[in-house]
Amino acid sequence: MSEPISPPPPLPHIASLHAYTPGLQPDGFDWVKLNTNESPYPPSPRVAAAVMRELGPVDSASIGARLRLYPNPASVALRETIAAYHATECPSLTAASVLVGNGSDDILNLLVRAYCAAAAPLAFTAPSYSLYPVLVAIENGRCEPIPFTRDMTLPVDKIAATTAPVVFLTSPNAPTGVGFPNAGIERILARYRGLLVVDEAYAPFARENAAPLLARHANLVIVRTLSKAHALAGIRVGYALAHPEIIAALDRVRDSYNVSRLSQAAAIAALNDRAYYHDPATGIIAKIKRTRDHWLNAWGADGRGWFTYPSQANFIFTEPKNARGEAGPAVAKSACDYLCAHKVLVRYFAGHPLTASFLRISVGTDDEMTALDNTLQAWQQTA
Amino acid sequence: MSEPISPPPPLPHIASLHAYTPGLQPDGFDWVKLNTNESPYPPSPRVAAAVMRELGPVDSASIGARLRLYPNPASVALRETIAAYHATECPSLTAASVLVGNGSDDILNLLVRAYCAAAAPLAFTAPSYSLYPVLVAIENGRCEPIPFTRDMTLPVDKIAATTAPVVFLTSPNAPTGVGFPNAGIERILARYRGLLVVDEAYAPFARENAAPLLARHANLVIVRTLSKAHALAGIRVGYALAHPEIIAALDRVRDSYNVSRLSQAAAIAALNDRAYYHDPATGIIAKIKRTRDHWLNAWGADGRGWFTYPSQANFIFTEPKNARGEAGPAVAKSACDYLCAHKVLVRYFAGHPLTASFLRISVGTDDEMTALDNTLQAWQQTA
Repeated sequence: MSEPISPPPPLPHIASLHAYTPGLQPDGFDWVKLNTNESPYPPSPRVAAAVMRELGPVDSASIGARLRLYPNPASVALRETIAAYHATECPSLTAASVLVGNGSDDILNLLVRAYCAAAAPLAFTAPSYSLYPVLVAIENGRCEPIPFTRDMTLPVDKIAATTAPVVFLTSPNAPTGVGFPNAGIERILARYRGLLVVDEAYAPFARENAAPLLARHANLVIVRTLSKAHALAGIRVGYALAHPEIIAALDRVRDSYNVSRLSQAAAIAALNDRAYYHDPATGIIAKIKRTRDHWLNAWGADGRGWFTYPSQANFIFTEPKNARGEAGPAVAKSACDYLCAHKVLVRYFAGHPLTASFLRISVGTDDEMTALDNTLQAWQQTA
Repeated sequence: MSEPISPPPPLPHIASLHAYTPGLQPDGFDWVKLNTNESPYPPSPRVAAAVMRELGPVDSASIGARLRLYPNPASVALRETIAAYHATECPSLTAASVLVGNGSDDILNLLVRAYCAAAAPLAFTAPSYSLYPVLVAIENGRCEPIPFTRDMTLPVDKIAATTAPVVFLTSPNAPTGVGFPNAGIERILARYRGLLVVDEAYAPFARENAAPLLARHANLVIVRTLSKAHALAGIRVGYALAHPEIIAALDRVRDSYNVSRLSQAAAIAALNDRAYYHDPATGIIAKIKRTRDHWLNAWGADGRGWFTYPSQANFIFTEPKNARGEAGPAVAKSACDYLCAHKVLVRYFAGHPLTASFLRISVGTDDEMTALDNTLQAWQQTA
């Protein structure tokens, strides 16, 4: 680019925008990667089978021929699969109450674009998913954070009293892992008349989820992803469940062909293999919960004595202590850096007083968790 | 949804929004589908091979395991492949000048969000891609259409004189297929200081493209897609080429993980199989151009005598005449309806006086074009 002059600048609020920072995604496979809440187990083998079926017969000269055609623009078959997947929790749910996105971040983005503006702020509990304020900033909108306290109780009264037309509530919360019971969410819905968006990215690991409330509350939106419990972060599929009028508004804003053919096929196959994910004995969700609960105990009050939130997600938010029993931002940062230097990736959030003393550790395989813990113990000797 | 009350409405401009209407995507395979400018030929067989490689060994218990991990957030390897793909036309191009999107519609959307607002209108030549005003309406922005005349000459002076900070120019134009030479685009760039976005979705079928101008013009953006010439509408990959500062602004606005693992792998494989697409004798682009030129002649002034634009794209925009030699909106609509009733899909754009007398016919296989033409001749007997 040899042109001497600079290109014209973007809009002022874009020029000054701080982008969302995703967790590190190293290319090599020699890391213990516990930083972005991916599943440590592969997706259902039916996923790869469905992708290969979409490609066509392997011995054919025209393998992949169907990829020349646009995908179903509305992801119709996937919407129907999703409605059926939630039929037990919400029997009245139909495909008209489902929107499919290019990951759940796409859904959150559509909600902000359709409902939020400078005069229509987005309220969200804080700390939570750090993407929310970025989505608002892209729209030059206004944020109204509703603070959590360290005990992470749901601030029902503060949420119910907000004049913001939209509230995002992450449940189970990120990054603490604390889940909020439906009783609390219903106490909000009894008084709040704006749009309550419950971001349930981690709900399959929780004791309860808000889907049963959909039938009674036209202002409730539930956002889900296949990136976590369904072990499909690589295919980018998320979805919203809500009143059909809300879905219709979001459908007008979304890209016409927002989900690829292979991703639609993969997602349908995963949701239809309920046993692989949800079997209470052999399912991968149960396996992850068992590993999570083991390390919650090992690190928590009854074990190593680190303050650790009672996680209902696939990660653990714990406040490490050094050899002298001290906790705090410098200690947590030191642990994170030590782990990274030893090729163990976890997440450290310096930006908020309620997170800066903690590490967020995605639940890995038992071997990965043992490797992590050994490295943490080695760090403790040095710190 | 048994709730008696309605959900809260979206922002007023979203409530009144007219969504973009994509062409019909029937599920069955018994249609002659010439309505959305897809490739009639399959993508390179290397695409399916790359997708299967990303899934892992077929006989492995953990097939598909890599899908549990997020994709490379910046599509780094794909950006490098794209820069190398354009090295002949623009040797100075690096990955820092490339942005990858979830289809080129994602790129257009990002451009509107980053550069356009109510006080910063989007200018675009009209008629062209009908998505542009929809993207502006979602942002509650302002449009400034710059009209074409029926002779489809490039309105250089009108574009150069606009005070809009961004201009979208589709070249080759949709839906006429008329391509604009670089000489005309450079005459605009000599005077216009805003962002000139040349939407080159159909450029691989054209005699010329604007990529060589990138090295000299910091305010030029080129938008490409793999949906048309690369026969990959199903995977949703498009990209922008521009000054690194423009790419950096768009990177701040885009979703962190906007392109799936399988789509990144598929796109890299396609762009690296240059011969399959670009060989002047055997490549599928040359095949499509030969079919296009045959039917341009058959229907045009030297053949059936229908007014037909000299297409440089993979579609033909022609003004059909009925048995009495009449053309016009009613005639074109009648032809489109007759074709549809006989399971031949083409596109008809009623909304603009320069398009309402025409059919837009995607170039299919030779057999598909013969089937279409036979049906058109049968229609002529009835009309």
